[in-house]
Amino acid sequence: MPDPASASLDRHDTIRAVIHVDGALRLLDQRELPFAETFVECRNAPDVAKAIKDLVVRGAPAIGIAAAWGVVLQAALLAGAGHAVTVAALASTFDALNAARPTAVNLAWALARMRGALALAKTDPLAALAAEARAIQDEDLAANRKMGGIGAGFLDRGSGVLTHCNTGSLATAGFGTALGVIRAGFADRKIVQVYAGETRPWLQGARLTMWELVRDQIPAKLIADSAASHLMKSGAVQWVIVGADRIAANGDAANKIGTYQLAIAAKRHGVRFMVVAPWSTVDMATKRGDDIEIELRDPAELLSISGRRMVVDGADAWNPVFDVTPAELIDVIVTERGAIERPGEAGMARLAALG
Amino acid sequence: MPDPASASLDRHDTIRAVIHVDGALRLLDQRELPFAETFVECRNAPDVAKAIKDLVVRGAPAIGIAAAWGVVLQAALLAGAGHAVTVAALASTFDALNAARPTAVNLAWALARMRGALALAKTDPLAALAAEARAIQDEDLAANRKMGGIGAGFLDRGSGVLTHCNTGSLATAGFGTALGVIRAGFADRKIVQVYAGETRPWLQGARLTMWELVRDQIPAKLIADSAASHLMKSGAVQWVIVGADRIAANGDAANKIGTYQLAIAAKRHGVRFMVVAPWSTVDMATKRGDDIEIELRDPAELLSISGRRMVVDGADAWNPVFDVTPAELIDVIVTERGAIERPGEAGMARLAALG
Repeated sequence: MPDPASASLDRHDTIRAVIHVDGALRLLDQRELPFAETFVECRNAPDVAKAIKDLVVRGAPAIGIAAAWGVVLQAALLAGAGHAVTVAALASTFDALNAARPTAVNLAWALARMRGALALAKTDPLAALAAEARAIQDEDLAANRKMGGIGAGFLDRGSGVLTHCNTGSLATAGFGTALGVIRAGFADRKIVQVYAGETRPWLQGARLTMWELVRDQIPAKLIADSAASHLMKSGAVQWVIVGADRIAANGDAANKIGTYQLAIAAKRHGVRFMVVAPWSTVDMATKRGDDIEIELRDPAELLSISGRRMVVDGADAWNPVFDVTPAELIDVIVTERGAIERPGEAGMARLAALG
Repeated sequence: MPDPASASLDRHDTIRAVIHVDGALRLLDQRELPFAETFVECRNAPDVAKAIKDLVVRGAPAIGIAAAWGVVLQAALLAGAGHAVTVAALASTFDALNAARPTAVNLAWALARMRGALALAKTDPLAALAAEARAIQDEDLAANRKMGGIGAGFLDRGSGVLTHCNTGSLATAGFGTALGVIRAGFADRKIVQVYAGETRPWLQGARLTMWELVRDQIPAKLIADSAASHLMKSGAVQWVIVGADRIAANGDAANKIGTYQLAIAAKRHGVRFMVVAPWSTVDMATKRGDDIEIELRDPAELLSISGRRMVVDGADAWNPVFDVTPAELIDVIVTERGAIERPGEAGMARLAALG
């Protein structure tokens, strides 16, 4: 007889965006969501590199997993070639995958693991690579489920939560980081209502997070990013739960533009603020958030929506992609190694020592 | 020889959206901006009522002015009919115009002035009505220019400013309220850079404010609404300058959704916060901002952009149109009666007594 709690959780966790089956990698095309649910099928590493570059797959953990499977697909084309030949033939594959999106931390991390597995596998390189890719994918899912449980433990029954961007099954092996905590918290009956900021300019919240939440039957309302403070004042949310792109050694967290604004507003309203990210997101070599370079992207991303120009010709825009939320505004950072309340250097160092 | 300062100002104030000429009212169609600059020509009051209802013209002062001219157009069709006949014939005109957008304060206020002018004009009702409509329009422009000067007086040289929504020539007789202060401050060489929040969901900032600023040669950059805090942290702006839809007797100000969030972030960063609105926006009968009812609009406005559905079917949204910025977060309220620094009940009562 199935455990009722986990059966309930499964009902709210149905999406997998990166699927290796029958010698191919099927990627749910995130450029087309929510308009169409189509899969791009990759048969070799160049197919995977192109899919990463073209944003068919996005989200740092999902990119790393896809790249790992790209190595496996390419190795399968060399099946029976022996270790030395396989190592030589895959050198350019590793380089090409790594170059697909050079700034994504998890991409380089996953490829380093695959290189290590290949180096150790003298007898059956293909089997070793497939096992490592499977491990990377399974470990990511396990980390997300663990973070979900840890994060949900902080929530009270009857909570409303606000999230930003997309941190769900689409961005990971499945379940998600911040959205994983929301999945776990809803299955535990702690969360009664989710609000998702639309996340201009790319609309990851509107297009992707709302798609995940509607599909997984979690009650959700979309809001304009600028309605967050009014929402908090209304008393409808007790927590803001977000992911991170990089966490510095003092607990400052870089994340999607707009996160900092949510943290400032949360502090004013007594709404608590949770950052959920796997330990691979932590960069202990970066001392503080101000040392993190914030990427500025093309103004054109703000000047058009869905291919239609919305702003007068000759207009300029300022389009930073991330901002930094200082640790003082974060109530808890959740990683698969554990949680850090009132994060700072000491708490970060404590979890770093567990590695 | 023209005054160089006012010549400079004229170069940054070229837009008029409501024009009475040759027995017709020409309205710049704001639904089409910035894609096309087309005028809708109204020949009678029903034309004007439809244009108000259909959002050809928007912005409380501009709506009031358009309605006043609508009365004039209708009276002209009765030219020579005498006072009693004109009064009787215009009764339904007043009602129809007033019903076009019943929540806009300035609409009722302008029509009340027109009714008063008609009542007093025994000999030539058409001339009296035309004079009153002209006065309403001219007084609005004069108030905006006066507020521009008062507001610009608070700015230091070399300032960057952030604004929200559209408060410019498109929303008024011309020049604008908050955007009027920006026009005056730029002409005075106090403002060196303007940032405009795109103002989801209607994109008044992206579509209308950027159009005004580019056209009037004021250096401006569009930002995502959620980039405001990161912008403030960068040190690029010293002031947030916004309009208001209603100001309570204690100085709390209702304005476009997102304004409250800007005020919270401004306080954290030491950025100053200015609200600019004509005295007709002040509602001394409303004691505090929490007594102002916040209009919730159709979720559909968030679920589609420019006619294209962006969110999965079955998704819900929460779409409040306004929020309230408490007086404690406002550094100065500028009206044509003067400015109130650190606004509160006493300062508001002092200006109210001038009326």
